[in-house]
Amino acid sequence: MKLKEYIKTVPNFPKDGIMFKDITPLIADARAFTYATKQLSDFAREKDADVIVGPDARGFIFGTPVALNLNIGFIPVRKPGKLPRETITEAYDLEYGHAELSIHKDDIKTGQRVVIIDDLLATGGTIEATIKLVEKAGGNVVGIGFLIELAELKGRHRFKDYPIHSLLVY
Amino acid sequence: MKLKEYIKTVPNFPKDGIMFKDITPLIADARAFTYATKQLSDFAREKDADVIVGPDARGFIFGTPVALNLNIGFIPVRKPGKLPRETITEAYDLEYGHAELSIHKDDIKTGQRVVIIDDLLATGGTIEATIKLVEKAGGNVVGIGFLIELAELKGRHRFKDYPIHSLLVY
Repeated sequence: MKLKEYIKTVPNFPKDGIMFKDITPLIADARAFTYATKQLSDFAREKDADVIVGPDARGFIFGTPVALNLNIGFIPVRKPGKLPRETITEAYDLEYGHAELSIHKDDIKTGQRVVIIDDLLATGGTIEATIKLVEKAGGNVVGIGFLIELAELKGRHRFKDYPIHSLLVY
Repeated sequence: MKLKEYIKTVPNFPKDGIMFKDITPLIADARAFTYATKQLSDFAREKDADVIVGPDARGFIFGTPVALNLNIGFIPVRKPGKLPRETITEAYDLEYGHAELSIHKDDIKTGQRVVIIDDLLATGGTIEATIKLVEKAGGNVVGIGFLIELAELKGRHRFKDYPIHSLLVY
């Protein structure tokens, strides 16, 4: 199935020079969305994941179906002020801007095999913060799956120690 | 299955007087998460949904599995500045605070049967805005499904013309 047909490139969003990858046509199509989440699920299953972690908010769209397909739990990584119990927080740089992400301190058990799922790998700031959060919480990141990887931004080079699987590379 | 055992009430979050319902223990448990999304899927199927709409961000966690279960598309309603194509936007009041939500103008086809899925019905501000967005985009809201309803806030009373189904009522 040609998943790239369901991704729309929108130039200069959210600011000049950014070629934004719009995933909404893909998730609006049941066949494409099912196919993409099945591929990501196969990757997470192969890595023998105990739990799926996905960052706020598009990581929820792809991470929750993967967790349900594997019959394992889903742990959200969220923007600050959203998780009500004790959290760990990491600041990071985005392709455009700056942000923070948090995880509940007690949601991952020590040594759990964690697969991180997100929609897109750009410069890798979000994922670097997510890896740090998972590891500080005691988890073992055994794989990172993306729908899309923007290869020219070289985000992958920051994560040489982690298996990365991207369904679509631009 | 007693889903309430997987919801943690956190007092005074995000501010004094709010009894926050923490859904993260539920989604961290594969059996409870599968059960809850199956119940919401049964509701959406019964309403003969053509498409599922879910608001940013926890609506994604419950809405995407429902869309995949029914083999139909998922349309995200997002905070401003996140959707790259032409949008419609609604301002609304929250249980605590004020916000705006947007939908892509062309994502819903005229007359499509839309089921809205979200995690929680409080005062109903988010859902009122979401209904308006769906209807302005040409959709027909045939049902609204929640994991949790806070009955004392009477959000349901704002939506007398719409079938509402809540798995857990507090």
